[in-house]
Amino acid sequence: MKVLSIEWISESAEGMMPGFIRMIDQTRLPEELAYLNTTDIEIVWEAIKMLRVRGAPAIGIAAAMGVAAALQGSEASGERLLAEAEKHADYLATSRPTAVNLFQALERMKSVARASASLPPAAFKERLVREAVAIRDEDAAMCRAIGEHGLKLIRDGQTVLTHCNAGALAVSEYGSALAPIYAAQAHGMRVRVFADETRPLLQGARLTAWELMQAGIDVTLICDNTAAVVMKEGKIDMVMVGSDRIAANGDAANKIGTYGVARLARAHGIPVYFLAPTTTIDMSLPSGDCIPIEERSAEEVTCGFGRRTAPEGVKVYAPAFDVTPAEYITAIVTEKGAAYPPFGETLREWMK
Amino acid sequence: MKVLSIEWISESAEGMMPGFIRMIDQTRLPEELAYLNTTDIEIVWEAIKMLRVRGAPAIGIAAAMGVAAALQGSEASGERLLAEAEKHADYLATSRPTAVNLFQALERMKSVARASASLPPAAFKERLVREAVAIRDEDAAMCRAIGEHGLKLIRDGQTVLTHCNAGALAVSEYGSALAPIYAAQAHGMRVRVFADETRPLLQGARLTAWELMQAGIDVTLICDNTAAVVMKEGKIDMVMVGSDRIAANGDAANKIGTYGVARLARAHGIPVYFLAPTTTIDMSLPSGDCIPIEERSAEEVTCGFGRRTAPEGVKVYAPAFDVTPAEYITAIVTEKGAAYPPFGETLREWMK
Repeated sequence: MKVLSIEWISESAEGMMPGFIRMIDQTRLPEELAYLNTTDIEIVWEAIKMLRVRGAPAIGIAAAMGVAAALQGSEASGERLLAEAEKHADYLATSRPTAVNLFQALERMKSVARASASLPPAAFKERLVREAVAIRDEDAAMCRAIGEHGLKLIRDGQTVLTHCNAGALAVSEYGSALAPIYAAQAHGMRVRVFADETRPLLQGARLTAWELMQAGIDVTLICDNTAAVVMKEGKIDMVMVGSDRIAANGDAANKIGTYGVARLARAHGIPVYFLAPTTTIDMSLPSGDCIPIEERSAEEVTCGFGRRTAPEGVKVYAPAFDVTPAEYITAIVTEKGAAYPPFGETLREWMK
Repeated sequence: MKVLSIEWISESAEGMMPGFIRMIDQTRLPEELAYLNTTDIEIVWEAIKMLRVRGAPAIGIAAAMGVAAALQGSEASGERLLAEAEKHADYLATSRPTAVNLFQALERMKSVARASASLPPAAFKERLVREAVAIRDEDAAMCRAIGEHGLKLIRDGQTVLTHCNAGALAVSEYGSALAPIYAAQAHGMRVRVFADETRPLLQGARLTAWELMQAGIDVTLICDNTAAVVMKEGKIDMVMVGSDRIAANGDAANKIGTYGVARLARAHGIPVYFLAPTTTIDMSLPSGDCIPIEERSAEEVTCGFGRRTAPEGVKVYAPAFDVTPAEYITAIVTEKGAAYPPFGETLREWMK
């Protein structure tokens, strides 16, 4: 089964309206594949806030479609309709105040809305739906490009270790870290995956294992602390992970645990690939030291799954991300190609 | 508070009888400090089977005390009393069929029983209680010796990273891996500890964090995948872990995840100490390749917290232990002292 984390479902034979957003409720995975079908902006806001939809690109798409969906039933026209669109966008921007893709997608929707203000209401609304769908389609195309570039790094029969979830659920269709794996499958290659469960929130266990199984890809789940053992046993040919922010020198932030995986891979002579769209590259940061690291609440570690598993009041150190210095990264793969060390020049070239 | 995982509590002012076993029910930690007070051999058997008491030495002590406790109410004497003792020992040996310390302790109880068969019943029973208490006291003394040898490796104000639980709950009083930390505290030194939570069974979160907090030692809990980050941040001065089996060349098996910690420590220039009694050293195994590694059930990973956190039917690779090659071990510390590479000679010396 092809996993589509967010789609626009149109009920019409011709245009895209009337229609609604269909999102996988990721909080119910892996126990249940449940969809949210909605045109209600409150539900979209709540879905982003509560991580029912997660992954930076997916959040942006959900927000863009949310704005378009909410306008469908409006009676307004002209300036009043434009004002509604802007109000919806501003409202959704409050759902997760630090997500860059969210703001980018909403700014784009507002800008298209302003440029289309003179259209008749039905055409205006259709235009916004098309823009939201275009954002999704561009994201899918970008993932496909990452997949094709990453595919050159994989040979038939090889095994990839990944950490966290940078797959179809986080991005569109191919995802980023998993894109070469889906591309390999599309080319008829057999690729195996070991997925770190990724404490504390278990995105590897709950999401990566689930989406790879849905796609019929051979996946084995391991505890994070078992990555070193499978490397030592010769089971791993390469590491492929996503990234949340890449500095100008190639230092890359990703989910906590990635740095350890990268150091262990180096110790075992295994290449480490970071795969992400160029939107992840932040040329204003000279190095990874400048990437701010969010610290999460102790409860995610001590009461992760409903039951208390650590003493009341214990001190916990729970950074959400870590930074892998560029020297431990074999290549950075984006929709524009693969960059090799030293990364600075290629990154500058890409971001011109 | 001093944590005593198993004690013999005597109600008498003179001898050790009547008395009973007091065990911490480790399955109820950290939510609740609950004791099992019993002379019932069925309860002791169940406690070992269900991991209410865990850690190889602690299991041996529980079994030895179980045999002694069960005899207290017996009406038998002479050969019939001896037969009862042997029957109890054989029964407890079925509780966890692979625990070496369990068999050793029970064999020792049987041997003392046979040597004491001519004693009057009260003296015979008292003798067995004293033997069980002696096993516990010897274990505590051995841990204390490991602590004193390990103490030489720690300076005031330093920070130790540990993995799993090889402390007071697993062994007696000082434990093995944690022994130098308790010894340092007894010497008025300030030592901080980072405890890996230790997936899948979370012994670090549930037990190590709990017992160190009880002792008033500064402990910070981290997810296993965060060990690399705290090393990179310069927070860790050394790694101290226990061991389940040490081969003749110094290769050491311990809870899954230890090998990764050792490789990461090496990559960050941090020393790695394995601390264990010499009973852990198995000179019949030339190297770690000969140490059999138990594979655990997938459910410990997929449903670890009571809730299913991975897809139904997902493949899981869950070895219970891993082997750290001697080359990544800075020193092996036992009750006899510290061994440095190459370990073979010192280990042979110790085991003569």
